[in-house]
Amino acid sequence: MRTVYVNGSFVPEDEATVSVFDRGFLFADGVYEVTSVLDGKLVDFAGHCGRLRRSLGELQMTLETTDEELLAIHRKLVSENAIEEGLVYLQVTRGAADRDFVFPPEDTPATLVLFTQAKSLIDSDLANRGQKIFTVEDQRWTRCDIKTVQLLYPSLAKMEAKSRGGDDAWLVRDGLVTEGSSNNAYIVLGDGTIVTRDLSNLILHGITRRAVLECARHLQMKVVERPFTVDEAIGAVEAFSTSASGFVCPVIAIDDNRIGTGEPGPVAGKLREVYIAEMRKSAI
Amino acid sequence: MRTVYVNGSFVPEDEATVSVFDRGFLFADGVYEVTSVLDGKLVDFAGHCGRLRRSLGELQMTLETTDEELLAIHRKLVSENAIEEGLVYLQVTRGAADRDFVFPPEDTPATLVLFTQAKSLIDSDLANRGQKIFTVEDQRWTRCDIKTVQLLYPSLAKMEAKSRGGDDAWLVRDGLVTEGSSNNAYIVLGDGTIVTRDLSNLILHGITRRAVLECARHLQMKVVERPFTVDEAIGAVEAFSTSASGFVCPVIAIDDNRIGTGEPGPVAGKLREVYIAEMRKSAI
Repeated sequence: MRTVYVNGSFVPEDEATVSVFDRGFLFADGVYEVTSVLDGKLVDFAGHCGRLRRSLGELQMTLETTDEELLAIHRKLVSENAIEEGLVYLQVTRGAADRDFVFPPEDTPATLVLFTQAKSLIDSDLANRGQKIFTVEDQRWTRCDIKTVQLLYPSLAKMEAKSRGGDDAWLVRDGLVTEGSSNNAYIVLGDGTIVTRDLSNLILHGITRRAVLECARHLQMKVVERPFTVDEAIGAVEAFSTSASGFVCPVIAIDDNRIGTGEPGPVAGKLREVYIAEMRKSAI
Repeated sequence: MRTVYVNGSFVPEDEATVSVFDRGFLFADGVYEVTSVLDGKLVDFAGHCGRLRRSLGELQMTLETTDEELLAIHRKLVSENAIEEGLVYLQVTRGAADRDFVFPPEDTPATLVLFTQAKSLIDSDLANRGQKIFTVEDQRWTRCDIKTVQLLYPSLAKMEAKSRGGDDAWLVRDGLVTEGSSNNAYIVLGDGTIVTRDLSNLILHGITRRAVLECARHLQMKVVERPFTVDEAIGAVEAFSTSASGFVCPVIAIDDNRIGTGEPGPVAGKLREVYIAEMRKSAI
């Protein structure tokens, strides 16, 4: 049985609970991060901490726990649960208080929950065979740059893609792809240019996105950050997604249209290889 | 200490918990209803049950508990907590499962939580003095007709209105008022016509809205369901909101502009009186 962290305590997972009055449960008033574990070490921990602080700041949410303390909790969970490869999930909410749309008093302690998931990340079936994507209308709120737990729509979109025989959904707002259900979306044009949506309030500012784009630039690949249409994606020679747990994951079909050769492409393959190598070096 | 209902048990509120793996906590994958209590009886219980079933259906969520059983739980909580006037809050989530955007197996039991809040509803300070509203951009997702717990933005909008010296926010999408942070929005034109946003995916299909519009029609008031702008609202002779806990609540200012005389208006007053009388008669 996993050990889970809840508000200062390490407890068996079946005792890991929060109050029904927690604002994470009643109002989706919470933010989260998912950090990958490779070789028992944390991938881009500083990046995830930085984004967590930004999410908290955007919502005027306070967390007393320092980055150093967060690191210690991550490491203890990785060690107690013997995670060699997998994830650490972290969630902060505005705490428990009697239900009111008005924020609780500022001294209400935040709720902090962390748990691990063991998962094979490097040897991934999905990465090996490539994902089949279906496009779905992006019906989310317009502050997708804040990593909140308002994840119902991404979950519904993924289920919609699954029901059509796919692996995941890409979301489309005003005719333009924003991102995947829990990942950023990329296409590769005939001249080798990598295109991905530019940062705005409409997409998550992926920690993996940032690192992968840096890898691409080091590899002298041309990167353009701009919106693209579904038609442009279908006409691309390659497509892929990036996320903390999926790294770089090739896309082989969109809306039942084969992308390129219909096999995982070389750009995604190279970026996946280089990204994983870099992350193994820098993991802590 | 309140008694709270959690998954079959009536427990003291400080023991009322859900798993950190509950999808309500991790994904905002849950829906809710709030039923008012007057004279120790439930207001429009059938209406709330009907909408709950619709919300569940839209999300392919299953709840084994029947309406009759829900009624019994409501009544037991009202009685144990000696609620003469106040609310019963009910939340259903897709249950607890290891974190995954993919839905858990269909036999995963839903989580069912209910609690009460004692509150003076008829003698309401806000209803007596009238609300000051500030308009805020509607940044929510586009399935506001489903009563999910994705309430972070309405909460932020209410806080924004409070920070500007107001009581609540009205949300504006594409220049048109959709609804309040947790209520439906109405204006009254010079000729006495009541205008409120027509039903769509962009607003909650208020149970109180339906009952109040029925009262208005019985009173031979003219009702038009269509979008209206902020300017039209500011130029109105009266404005008000409706919700399960606020009944009919007058609005006396919008964005620091006085509405009509700047005092609670007669249309809102009459509708509040008639609605409360009707509900006291039909409460169960």
